[in-house]
Amino acid sequence: MRMVDIIEKKRNGEELTSEEIRFFVQGYTEGSIPDYQVSSLMMAIYFQDMNDRERADLTMAMVESGDQIDLSGIEGIKVDKHSTGGVGDTTTLSLAAMVAACGVPVAKMSGRGLGHTGGTIDKLESIQGFHVELTTEQFTKQVNDIGTAVVGQSGNLTPADKKLYALRDVTGTVASIPLIASSIMSKKIASGADAIVLDVKTGDGAFMKTYEDAQQLAHAMVQIGNNVGRNTMAIISDMSQPLGFAIGNALEVKEAIDTLNGNGPEDLMELCYTLGSQMVVLGGKAASIEEARQQLQEVIANGKALEVFKRFVEAQGGDTSVVDDPSRLPQAKYKFELPAKSSGYIAKIEADDVGVAAMLLGAGRATKESTIDLSVGLVLHKKVGDEVTEGESILTIHANSENIAEVKEKLYQHIVISEEKVEAPQLIKEVITK
Amino acid sequence: MRMVDIIEKKRNGEELTSEEIRFFVQGYTEGSIPDYQVSSLMMAIYFQDMNDRERADLTMAMVESGDQIDLSGIEGIKVDKHSTGGVGDTTTLSLAAMVAACGVPVAKMSGRGLGHTGGTIDKLESIQGFHVELTTEQFTKQVNDIGTAVVGQSGNLTPADKKLYALRDVTGTVASIPLIASSIMSKKIASGADAIVLDVKTGDGAFMKTYEDAQQLAHAMVQIGNNVGRNTMAIISDMSQPLGFAIGNALEVKEAIDTLNGNGPEDLMELCYTLGSQMVVLGGKAASIEEARQQLQEVIANGKALEVFKRFVEAQGGDTSVVDDPSRLPQAKYKFELPAKSSGYIAKIEADDVGVAAMLLGAGRATKESTIDLSVGLVLHKKVGDEVTEGESILTIHANSENIAEVKEKLYQHIVISEEKVEAPQLIKEVITK
Repeated sequence: MRMVDIIEKKRNGEELTSEEIRFFVQGYTEGSIPDYQVSSLMMAIYFQDMNDRERADLTMAMVESGDQIDLSGIEGIKVDKHSTGGVGDTTTLSLAAMVAACGVPVAKMSGRGLGHTGGTIDKLESIQGFHVELTTEQFTKQVNDIGTAVVGQSGNLTPADKKLYALRDVTGTVASIPLIASSIMSKKIASGADAIVLDVKTGDGAFMKTYEDAQQLAHAMVQIGNNVGRNTMAIISDMSQPLGFAIGNALEVKEAIDTLNGNGPEDLMELCYTLGSQMVVLGGKAASIEEARQQLQEVIANGKALEVFKRFVEAQGGDTSVVDDPSRLPQAKYKFELPAKSSGYIAKIEADDVGVAAMLLGAGRATKESTIDLSVGLVLHKKVGDEVTEGESILTIHANSENIAEVKEKLYQHIVISEEKVEAPQLIKEVITK
Repeated sequence: MRMVDIIEKKRNGEELTSEEIRFFVQGYTEGSIPDYQVSSLMMAIYFQDMNDRERADLTMAMVESGDQIDLSGIEGIKVDKHSTGGVGDTTTLSLAAMVAACGVPVAKMSGRGLGHTGGTIDKLESIQGFHVELTTEQFTKQVNDIGTAVVGQSGNLTPADKKLYALRDVTGTVASIPLIASSIMSKKIASGADAIVLDVKTGDGAFMKTYEDAQQLAHAMVQIGNNVGRNTMAIISDMSQPLGFAIGNALEVKEAIDTLNGNGPEDLMELCYTLGSQMVVLGGKAASIEEARQQLQEVIANGKALEVFKRFVEAQGGDTSVVDDPSRLPQAKYKFELPAKSSGYIAKIEADDVGVAAMLLGAGRATKESTIDLSVGLVLHKKVGDEVTEGESILTIHANSENIAEVKEKLYQHIVISEEKVEAPQLIKEVITK
């Protein structure tokens, strides 16, 4: 088999066989096929696409390129959730406890990551003592005992995907649906998920800016999952403004606790119910989405979800007193309000730029080496569609420096007040259950 | 400027600026831009094409990537000819003398090359004593004195094209009109041509198999030439069967001498008149194609073209007695006839495979290290459309070995006799003068 023939075949719009896909993924991982042939193939795929069978084969070839996590010691159907990423997305923290409280095991492998705020692990580490270094035995036991656990990424998962992604990043081949979909799905499958729920964000603050792209990606991933024997569902949700109120690590943990108490922001609660319902159905604990939602509402109302979260924090060495009193989480030194410059209705809170403002405060990492300030961030008091009067605070800035002129300027630039009434954007745009 | 932005721009179907094209050609030549980014850009160009301005810029950026031959010491308009390559193409040998005899200087830089037979230099070296090592001064003086000279390739011409071609060859991006056209034109321009005549072959034995592709390539090259100030004309000619009768080095030299005597094969003579007319017009020695053809017919009829060829051979150290007596050229030890197995009409003489048969005899190079046997080859007695009777010889095999079973088998496989009358293919399919 020759790589140049594979490139020409795809270039000509033909379907690659399973063997051809395995050949190039393996060869590239091992180093016998050079970057310059793979980048040319990636560009051919950008233009010629891949059909459902090729996408499934590419996903599994990447899964098989490295280690695969064995979660067979955990009882039940392990359901994982993936979000394509956005600003102020606190969902994972509350969702894991809610779903686990309904009897579906949530064995989460998570990362730190670059972005406006830290990753799930960074956020959890704002709870004093919390750690994610668990052996496989500890991890398995904790999920069986409590229903959920979070562990740091370990092992050599999907090395083919890592190498391909780095190459695509510098060769103009990131924005390809089959390549994005197989990249995401391969990581979830290698992490041991039996079933997968996907939250595909759309809007300014999302990777997929247009609704059409988000829809294509969601359908592509659901197809891949179902074709490789992992039941998969997805939703498309709004990321034109930040999710919930809080943007920042400790601030988001507090918001997650509020949510588990039933007092979270309306949009965040709704997202947890929607994604959670899919997870509970896929986990086999409810026959319908409606039934699952009732169970989730119950575990919030009767405190079971909060209880699971508390036990989870305790099991991983964290100070459980923060669950009862979130003011014990790291606090920033200063709080500044951002008063509205005019009266009217909030027309825009541009997620991406508001996220950058949080990063300027120190909430996120610009490079792998950056350190995160867990206490800082933003808490919105208004969301798009809300009425506001001149001088009223739109949000509170939690900072460890008094020098926040740049942050304020950025926020004023990207929060728009309109004289005319504005409709709040629809949060859940589409639910894809098959 | 970042290469990834250039790739994405072309991927999205946008026009690259002159600066962007120069940036990637220079960067790639110098090694500051890696193969994997360039191959991805080449694939994007394959799909998104380049407009006339981009093609001209790419050509000139490749010309400027290395040395450029200075032919300013030669009086008159230097017209070069390029053929996209085929089987039995003896044109250059006769054409240079014919055009020079009409007063247009032909200063030819030529190569050895891989293929069914050798390149122009290999062929000329079958004349004893002939050499192509000329200094710039000798080369210039000879063209001014005699009208024509052939020199071996020297200097670092179009290194960007060499590097790009090697990369395209292994990344599925050879078959792209803007890339092929700019590659050919950059070499001609760097070799010092003021004006260019192109012979784009089409059919089985050609690089461009379909007529549509040949047409696109011809128009693309004529456009580039005219856009960068080199008057350019082209023809599209048939290469479904070999050109002329002879395939082999010394055999083709004899055929070229026959042509200069006015006794060449009909198709070869016609091709020389057609291409020669364009060269004489571009060289400013005739006002119209018709007038130029008359001049060419005259220099054949009055022996001036043959005289130029003789002086050219003499000037470059060759034995001129072969011009009067071609039997003095290297002769193969054995001659074998290939008798027709049935009576009818020649329906096919598949150029590519017949060329391979000549290579099996030793007429061509399979790798750079192969040595060529100048004496061997094939001489056709029949061409497509000719009537043949069972047992009549279709061609003569000139060999230095009696072991020619494989060659005969290959020839019988690819020469088809039909019971029904067959039309001879049209040789000159299109003449593109602007």
